[in-house]
Amino acid sequence: MNNTINASIITIGDELLIGQTVDTNSAFIGQELNKIGIWVRRRVAVGDVWNDIWKALDEESRESKLIIITGGLGPTADDITKPLLAEYFGGKLVVDEKVLAHVKYLFEKVYRRPGPILERNLKQAEVPNVAAVLHNAWGSAPGMLFKKKDTVFISLPGVPHEMKGLMTNEVIPYLLKNMGVQAIVHRTAFTFGQGESMIAEKLIDFEARLPLHIKLAYLPGYGMVKLRLTSRGEHKEAVEQELLPYFEELKGLVKEFLVADEDEPLEVVVGKLLLARKQTMATAESCTGGYIAHLITGIPGSSDYYKGSIVSYANQVKQDLLGVQQRTLTQHGAVSEETVKEMVQGALQQLKADYAVATSGIMGPGGGTEQKPVGTVWIAVGNKDKVATLKLNLRFDRQRNITTAALNALNFLRKFILTNS
Amino acid sequence: MNNTINASIITIGDELLIGQTVDTNSAFIGQELNKIGIWVRRRVAVGDVWNDIWKALDEESRESKLIIITGGLGPTADDITKPLLAEYFGGKLVVDEKVLAHVKYLFEKVYRRPGPILERNLKQAEVPNVAAVLHNAWGSAPGMLFKKKDTVFISLPGVPHEMKGLMTNEVIPYLLKNMGVQAIVHRTAFTFGQGESMIAEKLIDFEARLPLHIKLAYLPGYGMVKLRLTSRGEHKEAVEQELLPYFEELKGLVKEFLVADEDEPLEVVVGKLLLARKQTMATAESCTGGYIAHLITGIPGSSDYYKGSIVSYANQVKQDLLGVQQRTLTQHGAVSEETVKEMVQGALQQLKADYAVATSGIMGPGGGTEQKPVGTVWIAVGNKDKVATLKLNLRFDRQRNITTAALNALNFLRKFILTNS
Repeated sequence: MNNTINASIITIGDELLIGQTVDTNSAFIGQELNKIGIWVRRRVAVGDVWNDIWKALDEESRESKLIIITGGLGPTADDITKPLLAEYFGGKLVVDEKVLAHVKYLFEKVYRRPGPILERNLKQAEVPNVAAVLHNAWGSAPGMLFKKKDTVFISLPGVPHEMKGLMTNEVIPYLLKNMGVQAIVHRTAFTFGQGESMIAEKLIDFEARLPLHIKLAYLPGYGMVKLRLTSRGEHKEAVEQELLPYFEELKGLVKEFLVADEDEPLEVVVGKLLLARKQTMATAESCTGGYIAHLITGIPGSSDYYKGSIVSYANQVKQDLLGVQQRTLTQHGAVSEETVKEMVQGALQQLKADYAVATSGIMGPGGGTEQKPVGTVWIAVGNKDKVATLKLNLRFDRQRNITTAALNALNFLRKFILTNS
Repeated sequence: MNNTINASIITIGDELLIGQTVDTNSAFIGQELNKIGIWVRRRVAVGDVWNDIWKALDEESRESKLIIITGGLGPTADDITKPLLAEYFGGKLVVDEKVLAHVKYLFEKVYRRPGPILERNLKQAEVPNVAAVLHNAWGSAPGMLFKKKDTVFISLPGVPHEMKGLMTNEVIPYLLKNMGVQAIVHRTAFTFGQGESMIAEKLIDFEARLPLHIKLAYLPGYGMVKLRLTSRGEHKEAVEQELLPYFEELKGLVKEFLVADEDEPLEVVVGKLLLARKQTMATAESCTGGYIAHLITGIPGSSDYYKGSIVSYANQVKQDLLGVQQRTLTQHGAVSEETVKEMVQGALQQLKADYAVATSGIMGPGGGTEQKPVGTVWIAVGNKDKVATLKLNLRFDRQRNITTAALNALNFLRKFILTNS
């Protein structure tokens, strides 16, 4: 960890402390800093309380050379943060003409709000006169950069897309230029369908043999474990070269469960397979209720390989639109291998796709029976020649059951495409 | 804020600092504590680093009487947290027979893993001999409770459903019984379709007249603002009584945008309307790609009023399954008022529902044109007698455009049901 820049993230706002808002900003900031070799040591969330914010600035600057602050800049905030920053860095609030012009432009031309601009919005153009302004093209609260001794403090608005725009377009370029950072290289092996403990057992020897400067991290998610090797050094290419054979060995050790050698979502992996084959897919979702469709259509360009979904929540829809036989539903039930097979056939025909995937299950909390307890899920995948099925027995809450079923369906489709195309 | 118990949350794990995991645990813990009148002052995230964890325990216990710690207890963690807690509280790690029996039961009877239980899993039964064990019915890592001077420290596993189970079933009952907490009452007015600044303008006088012990919080989300009044005191009923007229006044001031007088998701509000009317709905989604279906089917019991969705991502599917005319698509395009009107008609017929809602738009980043820029969305809602349409001009990134369009569609449906049933 020599030559590493330590950073802290301070988030300001009562809404984070009372859990009304999930702190996705810190995750994004952590990822972006990590990519350029800056290590986030601590993350602190405080409320809109003068003393707590002041103390956090003091404490974090003792051990971190970079402090990223988000939140506390909104038009209805108690307006503590900006006056506090002015005082903390020994300046005072003055109107920044460029920011004022931008605020006016936004309200008049972009938001097109009727009536005059509110005083509280105009106040967003006030900036401590000891700050360098970071232009916020995505909103009215400017980013601000301060220095004290040899620590850099950067204050960003808490609205996620504004914060992201500023991080990507202003903060990261500044840090790359001004804070000499080491090259850091990550390689991620994405596995699906095997638990963290079992994978760790397979990797005991491999981990023991890794040089001290190469770290292996386990990043578990629903149904998946990402294995990330990280190394660092002066020259990016040399670091990459050195890391490569370790990464190849790692992939070999988990090849049975390997989905991708990049850190990318399963729906992207499936999309790439289809694009490469110029093929298409469709879905017929009962228990996943449109979540597979949502994952796939979240990816830009997915209309090139995704036809659509029949979300057949009601049995009548399974019959009317997917052609599931009344007899099948009566004899085997909606949650059965037979039903998902017919759903796949129906989806292939109705949505005219090369592949289809279907799901039916009991997600809870109610609806379970002795023979089909909550968490029973049937998945089918098929093309015009073949249909394959998979049964899951999940044991989570409703939301996690839905997510896990959808990811398993995508992974099952991925394997089917690889062996049947 | 007299008589308030201050709490801190400490989360442990490199995965949070590098942003690989979004910290949903802290939000849940903050919510649950807040509900029983415990105020989270600070939230700190540290890595799997001995000194950093130790220092966080020292620092937070200076001002908080309750410290909740999550993470650092997994089978592949560097195993720092448990030995550290043992040392910090002056004890040592010993096998807890009850926890051991539970771990064995889980691996043998519930997970049904082949082969013997791994040493790393058995180690989860080790507990500092100065801790009270909190039974984790949801996994193998036990919760632990420590006391030092008059501060209570509670360590929970980081796996969200295990942490939630422990919070709900062990921690909250313990706190209610052992830490005399004040009654706290929240009332939330849920508004949709009006920005935070504009609402704040309407509420200036109201806010100024609030007694000091009643707080108004603005909780903005995509398209929505929740307005929450909070009060506290000795007796819950008296607090509720006192708060009521303020809450009624607040609702009156925002009645134009009021969706609900509870803090509940829009899909729950719509579901309740339909249940009360014994009516059903269906969706025909293009640009929202199944996300409306996902929101609705995330609610237990939604099969009572939700028939399903035709996610018509491809134009061919709009024609084949929803009966959109070729001519309509050619003349007006897929993103047009005419197309979403025909989609609604198709959904009503095909999915046999009382109401249907349809979406079509350009979510970006690509696909925009001069006349229909990225963010153009058409929404239609209808029943057998009538169809209404709405156009949005969104200006966010793809994910936020999808979410905002879906929520607007649900709100548009809500208003349609209220005026046309």
